[in-house]
Amino acid sequence: MQDADAARSHEMVFRMSSLRINSARMLREIDRFAAINRREDGSCCRLALTDADRQVRDMLVAEMRQLGLRIEVDPIGNIVGVMAGATTHAPVMTGSHLDTVATGGRYDGLYGVIAGLEVLRTLQENNVQPQRPVALAMFTNEEGVRFQPDMMGSLVFAGGLLLNEALAATAEDGVSLGDELTRIGYAGSTPSAQLHPGSFVELHIEQGPVLDRAGEVLGAVADLQGISWREIEILGVSNHAGTTPLSLRHDAGYAAAKIAVFVRDLAVRMGGSQVATMGRIQLSPNLVNVIPRRAVLTIDLRNTDERVLVGAEKELDAFVAELSRSEGVEIRSRQLVRTQPVQFDEEMVALVQRVAAELGHPARRMTSGAGHDAQMIARLCPTAMIFVPSIGGISHNARETTAEDHLAIGADALLQVILRLAG
Amino acid sequence: MQDADAARSHEMVFRMSSLRINSARMLREIDRFAAINRREDGSCCRLALTDADRQVRDMLVAEMRQLGLRIEVDPIGNIVGVMAGATTHAPVMTGSHLDTVATGGRYDGLYGVIAGLEVLRTLQENNVQPQRPVALAMFTNEEGVRFQPDMMGSLVFAGGLLLNEALAATAEDGVSLGDELTRIGYAGSTPSAQLHPGSFVELHIEQGPVLDRAGEVLGAVADLQGISWREIEILGVSNHAGTTPLSLRHDAGYAAAKIAVFVRDLAVRMGGSQVATMGRIQLSPNLVNVIPRRAVLTIDLRNTDERVLVGAEKELDAFVAELSRSEGVEIRSRQLVRTQPVQFDEEMVALVQRVAAELGHPARRMTSGAGHDAQMIARLCPTAMIFVPSIGGISHNARETTAEDHLAIGADALLQVILRLAG
Repeated sequence: MQDADAARSHEMVFRMSSLRINSARMLREIDRFAAINRREDGSCCRLALTDADRQVRDMLVAEMRQLGLRIEVDPIGNIVGVMAGATTHAPVMTGSHLDTVATGGRYDGLYGVIAGLEVLRTLQENNVQPQRPVALAMFTNEEGVRFQPDMMGSLVFAGGLLLNEALAATAEDGVSLGDELTRIGYAGSTPSAQLHPGSFVELHIEQGPVLDRAGEVLGAVADLQGISWREIEILGVSNHAGTTPLSLRHDAGYAAAKIAVFVRDLAVRMGGSQVATMGRIQLSPNLVNVIPRRAVLTIDLRNTDERVLVGAEKELDAFVAELSRSEGVEIRSRQLVRTQPVQFDEEMVALVQRVAAELGHPARRMTSGAGHDAQMIARLCPTAMIFVPSIGGISHNARETTAEDHLAIGADALLQVILRLAG
Repeated sequence: MQDADAARSHEMVFRMSSLRINSARMLREIDRFAAINRREDGSCCRLALTDADRQVRDMLVAEMRQLGLRIEVDPIGNIVGVMAGATTHAPVMTGSHLDTVATGGRYDGLYGVIAGLEVLRTLQENNVQPQRPVALAMFTNEEGVRFQPDMMGSLVFAGGLLLNEALAATAEDGVSLGDELTRIGYAGSTPSAQLHPGSFVELHIEQGPVLDRAGEVLGAVADLQGISWREIEILGVSNHAGTTPLSLRHDAGYAAAKIAVFVRDLAVRMGGSQVATMGRIQLSPNLVNVIPRRAVLTIDLRNTDERVLVGAEKELDAFVAELSRSEGVEIRSRQLVRTQPVQFDEEMVALVQRVAAELGHPARRMTSGAGHDAQMIARLCPTAMIFVPSIGGISHNARETTAEDHLAIGADALLQVILRLAG
């Protein structure tokens, strides 16, 4: 008896670990969803809570229904489809988002949702009923283009933002998120707290060049960078570029350039995960032979360690103060965005790495530079992410793409991680 | 007899050197001219060859006629009024321009022309007939706003630009300079060569802060900077500001900032008259969290020594080439403007300094950072300039101003220099 049980158990483990998703079917589904409101240049435009968003939500709900999932919509419009388990423990959850930026890529968000659907379909057609329920979530307004903040649905879900504040968020055309949610029919009534998972794993394209450059297929995301966005305004004195001696200048353009060079040098000196970018600058009057009177620039600082990120901000502040004195310019600094770094659960990260190794594609332990819904859900339960490469690191762009076999391997990794978590 | 002659000669020299212009009359005339097409904010708008330009030209010609000057207009529209001398030697010439930029100051150009008129009026009402003829010139299109290049009238006058090329210059609305000149009635027929002076002195506001800062009233301009304008285009790779490691970046914004800081440091290191300015920059896509793909910036380099200016350009080129390699960006450089430095005549500069000292306002020997008609006329004959302060160094702006007593002292210096030159 014991031998027979052991043999059966061994066979089951083997059968489970050799389970694979249907890659062709998943790619067809991605195509079908990506075609909604696709632009001429090939980019996707499914801004949150527009008609295009409603269309793909309806398509998702139809697929969930076909799989016999229990479908729940919470008051911020997150859609959760639950496949029952042998027990009623808190579910293993996967998911991502279906909204895009105005010129979004084909796989950003959509891949994680459709791969989750494919995982559930694979379990079902192989008659696998795990111990725990398995849930697939689609979170509202991850991109934060029409309504701020971004990652809004997952943030409300995790209790990080009050529902009423989120519903009151207003688009540039004056319409509120709450009204739009009602308009498209996704103002649900299931309290988010009733849907809380026991563990969460999100599959996503990397949106950066690391895996592609390294020629690796899978990433086990261990942490997310904290983000500090500063807008810096420099007020100098406009003057003739020929007649004004260097010693009498108060050059806002030069001061701006000094800051841009300083933050890059700072990031290089700090090393580790620290990055720094001047993405935007505007000079006034912006004429070839006039010393700029005013410069407005933005500095984006990121680090996975909150203490180190605070250190970088302090070094920037000290540099700016000294520069204000030495160049005789007034400098004002305004915080546009500030998020803290997130550390994912070490056991979850280790599980992703184990599964990846078994699949023959050892996962690179890595940091996410972009924000994802998983960072919000990490407040609730052990969480991790699986990355697949973006070719050239291109993202938020019609040219964003990933090799089809890499998409399949990522979905297989998701399947295997869910199987281990659900038992 | 000899003693009487000597006494008479001595008395005459004394009488001449104590001659002063009528300051109140000059200021009234400046007011009258500056009122033409004045804007609400107080700035002057007399773009070359517009109706406003015609109006002040007509007013100038009327004044010249009243003084009994011989009035000549050359084919590029320069107006020259000649007061006969005891001889027919080549005239002593003074003059400047009446056109302005779109938001010009009150004294830029206008001061030199009206002060010249006041000098001639002062000579006439004191019955002074110098040995040489004295000529007052108003040069066409000094500012170069509607039609390029700037200092066009004096450049054609001095033979530095072919008349036909100048007449073919086209404004943004498609109209040619030649047509506009005919339209306003100032396409003259006197060959410029017939009007060539024996010496030239231009009185102008400084358009920079040096005299004002030093608390000095008169400047003897010894030279003009050569000007090098470069437009630099940097092509990098746009990418996510969070997910792209520093080592994989090709950041056009950072490369632009490096160039802006380099040229300032270069100018400080070179010392002397060298100045350098990044006046204009444009990033693409210019978003806070996107590494800039493209930057276009301008660098303005100036020096009074051609050899040194060439050296600065070469250092910039070498830096840009190295930066292109180290940052992995493509950099293209385009020369927008290149003028050579001008050295004024040493005897003329010394004369300005002698006269200024006699007036009790010793002149600072200085460099002009701005371009002036005098730099073109310097090709023809011994030339110099007299500067008076601009308060705060402000220019090309409604707030451009000069103390009235400084305007009077400058005009007295012009009178005395002309008297010495005309004999």
